[in-house]
Amino acid sequence: MTTEIDRPLVISAPEPRTLDLIFTPQARVALEARYRIIEADPDAIAALGDDVLSQARFIIGQPPLDHNTLERMPQLRAILNVESNLINNMPYDVLFARGIHVVTTGQVFAEPVAELGLAMALNIARGIVDADVDFRHGRELWGGDGNAKARLLSGSNVGIIGFGDLGKALNRVLSGFRTKIKVYDPWMPASILIDNGVQPATLEDVLATSDFLFVVAAVTSENEGFLGAQAFAAMRPGAAFILLSRANVVDFEALMAAVESGHIVAASDVYPQEPLSLDHPVRSLNGFLRSAHRAGALDSAFKKMGDMVLEDMDLMDRNLPPMRCKRAERETVSRMRSKPVSVN
Amino acid sequence: MTTEIDRPLVISAPEPRTLDLIFTPQARVALEARYRIIEADPDAIAALGDDVLSQARFIIGQPPLDHNTLERMPQLRAILNVESNLINNMPYDVLFARGIHVVTTGQVFAEPVAELGLAMALNIARGIVDADVDFRHGRELWGGDGNAKARLLSGSNVGIIGFGDLGKALNRVLSGFRTKIKVYDPWMPASILIDNGVQPATLEDVLATSDFLFVVAAVTSENEGFLGAQAFAAMRPGAAFILLSRANVVDFEALMAAVESGHIVAASDVYPQEPLSLDHPVRSLNGFLRSAHRAGALDSAFKKMGDMVLEDMDLMDRNLPPMRCKRAERETVSRMRSKPVSVN
Amino acid sequence: MTTEIDRPLVISAPEPRTLDLIFTPQARVALEARYRIIEADPDAIAALGDDVLSQARFIIGQPPLDHNTLERMPQLRAILNVESNLINNMPYDVLFARGIHVVTTGQVFAEPVAELGLAMALNIARGIVDADVDFRHGRELWGGDGNAKARLLSGSNVGIIGFGDLGKALNRVLSGFRTKIKVYDPWMPASILIDNGVQPATLEDVLATSDFLFVVAAVTSENEGFLGAQAFAAMRPGAAFILLSRANVVDFEALMAAVESGHIVAASDVYPQEPLSLDHPVRSLNGFLRSAHRAGALDSAFKKMGDMVLEDMDLMDRNLPPMRCKRAERETVSRMRSKPVSVN
Amino acid sequence: MTTEIDRPLVISAPEPRTLDLIFTPQARVALEARYRIIEADPDAIAALGDDVLSQARFIIGQPPLDHNTLERMPQLRAILNVESNLINNMPYDVLFARGIHVVTTGQVFAEPVAELGLAMALNIARGIVDADVDFRHGRELWGGDGNAKARLLSGSNVGIIGFGDLGKALNRVLSGFRTKIKVYDPWMPASILIDNGVQPATLEDVLATSDFLFVVAAVTSENEGFLGAQAFAAMRPGAAFILLSRANVVDFEALMAAVESGHIVAASDVYPQEPLSLDHPVRSLNGFLRSAHRAGALDSAFKKMGDMVLEDMDLMDRNLPPMRCKRAERETVSRMRSKPVSVN
Repeated sequence: MTTEIDRPLVISAPEPRTLDLIFTPQARVALEARYRIIEADPDAIAALGDDVLSQARFIIGQPPLDHNTLERMPQLRAILNVESNLINNMPYDVLFARGIHVVTTGQVFAEPVAELGLAMALNIARGIVDADVDFRHGRELWGGDGNAKARLLSGSNVGIIGFGDLGKALNRVLSGFRTKIKVYDPWMPASILIDNGVQPATLEDVLATSDFLFVVAAVTSENEGFLGAQAFAAMRPGAAFILLSRANVVDFEALMAAVESGHIVAASDVYPQEPLSLDHPVRSLNGFLRSAHRAGALDSAFKKMGDMVLEDMDLMDRNLPPMRCKRAERETVSRMRSKPVSVN
Repeated sequence: MTTEIDRPLVISAPEPRTLDLIFTPQARVALEARYRIIEADPDAIAALGDDVLSQARFIIGQPPLDHNTLERMPQLRAILNVESNLINNMPYDVLFARGIHVVTTGQVFAEPVAELGLAMALNIARGIVDADVDFRHGRELWGGDGNAKARLLSGSNVGIIGFGDLGKALNRVLSGFRTKIKVYDPWMPASILIDNGVQPATLEDVLATSDFLFVVAAVTSENEGFLGAQAFAAMRPGAAFILLSRANVVDFEALMAAVESGHIVAASDVYPQEPLSLDHPVRSLNGFLRSAHRAGALDSAFKKMGDMVLEDMDLMDRNLPPMRCKRAERETVSRMRSKPVSVN
Repeated sequence: MTTEIDRPLVISAPEPRTLDLIFTPQARVALEARYRIIEADPDAIAALGDDVLSQARFIIGQPPLDHNTLERMPQLRAILNVESNLINNMPYDVLFARGIHVVTTGQVFAEPVAELGLAMALNIARGIVDADVDFRHGRELWGGDGNAKARLLSGSNVGIIGFGDLGKALNRVLSGFRTKIKVYDPWMPASILIDNGVQPATLEDVLATSDFLFVVAAVTSENEGFLGAQAFAAMRPGAAFILLSRANVVDFEALMAAVESGHIVAASDVYPQEPLSLDHPVRSLNGFLRSAHRAGALDSAFKKMGDMVLEDMDLMDRNLPPMRCKRAERETVSRMRSKPVSVN
Repeated sequence: MTTEIDRPLVISAPEPRTLDLIFTPQARVALEARYRIIEADPDAIAALGDDVLSQARFIIGQPPLDHNTLERMPQLRAILNVESNLINNMPYDVLFARGIHVVTTGQVFAEPVAELGLAMALNIARGIVDADVDFRHGRELWGGDGNAKARLLSGSNVGIIGFGDLGKALNRVLSGFRTKIKVYDPWMPASILIDNGVQPATLEDVLATSDFLFVVAAVTSENEGFLGAQAFAAMRPGAAFILLSRANVVDFEALMAAVESGHIVAASDVYPQEPLSLDHPVRSLNGFLRSAHRAGALDSAFKKMGDMVLEDMDLMDRNLPPMRCKRAERETVSRMRSKPVSVN
């Protein structure tokens, strides 16, 4: 039997998540059986005693950490960031130099976001929301009369901007639609895109040729607001612009103007302010499908975080590198700009 | 050059379609170049002269035909029914005995219906319509707060009732979702289902185990109303019932009651009466997504009919059997019960 | 319980197959439980009494039948030809006029033939036979030294001539190789090829652009010897020609000459005479991979015939059309030229 | 135009490869245009002047490096090891601490190895080598007579031991065969296997249930000889054992004995000694298909190395992490035991 002393020590500070949010009851049992869990105030890790710090193998969460505290943690192998945006609140250079892995679990959102993205595309293609609302009010149009603007996703030209976990998940849910998919991702070698069965393309090409354009790029120090009036003007008339990652990558005013003018149609899960003011014009904008940052935050996604954490801690317990979560990288950790979430 | 006399003669009576609806301009040019087209009143085929009837190779449409008229058409090779429901207005036994093919083009609707069906499933799974309506009115819930009932299609149990063209198209658009698909289709050998990567199942099994249940069965003399209160009661709590073929296969009152009770959620493209009375209770039923028989009637689908007709006429011109359209079968022609459409 | 009198009557004359060859023990039990089996000499069907003929619902096999015998069989619904080449030994026009289905089970060979065809392509690409023979004799070349002519199938240009069951099965086993597949099949509408994810092409195009060319076309009255010296000369230098259907579609001498000259490499499962004379030059031809008509004749394939027969008889017992086997067609039955097999 | 001074400096020491082996002429031009290439004797890197070492951004190859030399290379960002086995000839701890990437290009071999592995499986399943050899000598068996031991890969149970690049490539080429694939890989989280559509399994399970078993595991300090007499005895009678990675993971004598006894059949691309002595008993062993370490070493694979190197250097030039090649990992670099190759 595993005794108290054998179990590796884990500091738990998963705010804004909670262990109950990210672990199923069974996974929680497995966690407790295999590890000694010390629940800690994320803002007071330094206040923990050396008996804890000196033995801690893993941290679940991303509490602020300073050099001194890290020096008191000689056994630390990984910080498992379950919020999944990386805040600049710890000396990453020290962590990388020491070989302490910093991993994030944002991949859990890929599948739910991709499903909502596909749903948005199909909704726009078939006018489902307005058709149902019209039906409620007795003004529905029947058969072909209601399909004046309807079109198929199958066989269409699809663009994807950003080919991380979200882009790959979109590619997968699109696999039954025989679409031609072009991808713009300057951080990704062309050959990896080709291996994934999509065509590498410039931003200009993706904008100009897509019938459905999905934006799943992370915000970085280089791409804030890179999709503006000029980009929307370059799109095909009637094309659908579907925003799933972060509002900061677009000029939101310009996006609304492009929809208002009738040039394109759009859907978005993200907004410049969240929550959004009650009088924001996007609320009444025709040709715009709204979702209130609901794409990823499914309970099943949060529970998958716990599973990923357990799998990677198991690998590291066996002196293997983590493979399930995504590792923060020296080169890019300081270039990420997504704001952390305050609610789950 | 093809002279007037060389071109095979085609009687055109495509009502309620029109040649302009089902042929693109280019296809229309090809049609006229290859065939001599005689446009005829479908109710007066017998009134056509023997110069026409004796030479007619194809009929586009399904006009009423009697024994006598057919005897006057010794060269007739096929009736290309572009409405696609088979009406009992011609002596099919004579046609079959003579080897005159009766073919239908309903397959064109498979892809648009499948896309709408998938869209309905994703809409139900993520509450997209209500979320957008709430957002318009400033009462949206953000993030996880808005996802209390949200769930994934990926990895879920899917049931499909009927595995004709619609069922196969659904299977295809579902291919990126890693669902486990069970199919009930008593007209289809189990091994064909297995070859298509789905699991053959009884109706009871499909009802009891599906998270999402798609009904795409044609109405026959044997299955009218076969999905009633008992069937809905057998479904999983919260499961989604998505009706895409014909309202007659379900007891619509029982379906509404099952949704009203909160036991299941539903979507439908078809109704007992179409158009539906303005005070029909389904118009205000929560948990029910409505579409006014818009699933198939896309312009691109109608245009595909013309392409199919041209491809099969070309095969028959070369003394090959038609392969693109679906052939009416001696065994089943009299068992079909779908009412023909009056509007496109 | 099913009594003697209830069970439909089946005349069994499956030569050159036997019931034991085509039915597993379990399937044989199912067959006997559901049907009354009368084993008959195929050359003496007319000699059967009217008690048998008048009640026969199905014939398993393709015994010679004349008008008179067929008239004595008013209940006959289908002839299930398990040899699978159609011999001209019965009045097909009468059968078609009466709606008696003539079905064949050749589809069972598609999967084994496709697997052997792929194996041949990979063998040619990697020189596997010669490498193993060299290794046996201690003259093998190691690593890259042994790969001077080696190449990948992945990403190559593939041609398929004929897109019936064999062509479709080849397309399926090739699905993991990211090949670009062009198909020449004049009996198949282009749109069906496109639906199957392959590109319709002319014979000239397929010959000129393929790195690997698979011939799976049936022999018809129109295509005997259609692949001759000119066709082989049009192929890419070093391309692989893989013959899987029938030797009669090629000019075999010209094929050998093209291989002998070093212009192409080849593999074949079929030969102008079978068995082949001991001094036939193909036996010692370098660049030619030989298989002695073994592509389809696997025990598992024969057993699948019985399963198909049972499934289709079950459909017909329920007044549904057969779907599992392939139906003979009025238009093409007389154009097929494959010689029947004498051994299994 | 890029001047001499602008181009980053690359030390080239790719032995046993050469730049000509791993770069196509076009890629070589791109390399020279973007980088200043210093070709160096791998055994004399320390002898290079500080003008070179102080500016070197990349090393192509894996020359021996000591602490002192590395200190003289402050700009070094990556060592691109194109041999692809990691030799213990440099202080990896220093490299990791400084964030200098060590990457390998072994992934180029995945596709050719997978194709040969599939070819071996199909060869074993259909007895292709012996059939061709028999045909040459006029003793071939025709049709079913030659298929006594023939079987299908389609629908069979497949086992894969090791799920790195090779395992994934095998999974891909098997995708058209409807096999049930179980994978044993103790270094890989179960959920990643499931995401790849394969079933995680224990070694015992994979051994006991596979009809075709592919071994693509790298040799580590823990798994040398882990497949021995007991493992082979646990396999299904007649199952196929296909060895593609390194001979050291098996007890080769025991493998030969298991084949000799008739319990299993086998194929191998690797051997305990390479080249193998002329009197080695595997040369005449029936039921064993031999290949002389030819699985990966295709010219097209070597050329892909250069492409990968260029893509990753481009990412690093833009301060992005390498993504195309595989990174050596702190945890595992010292556990790898594959001997480097001496010939390409």
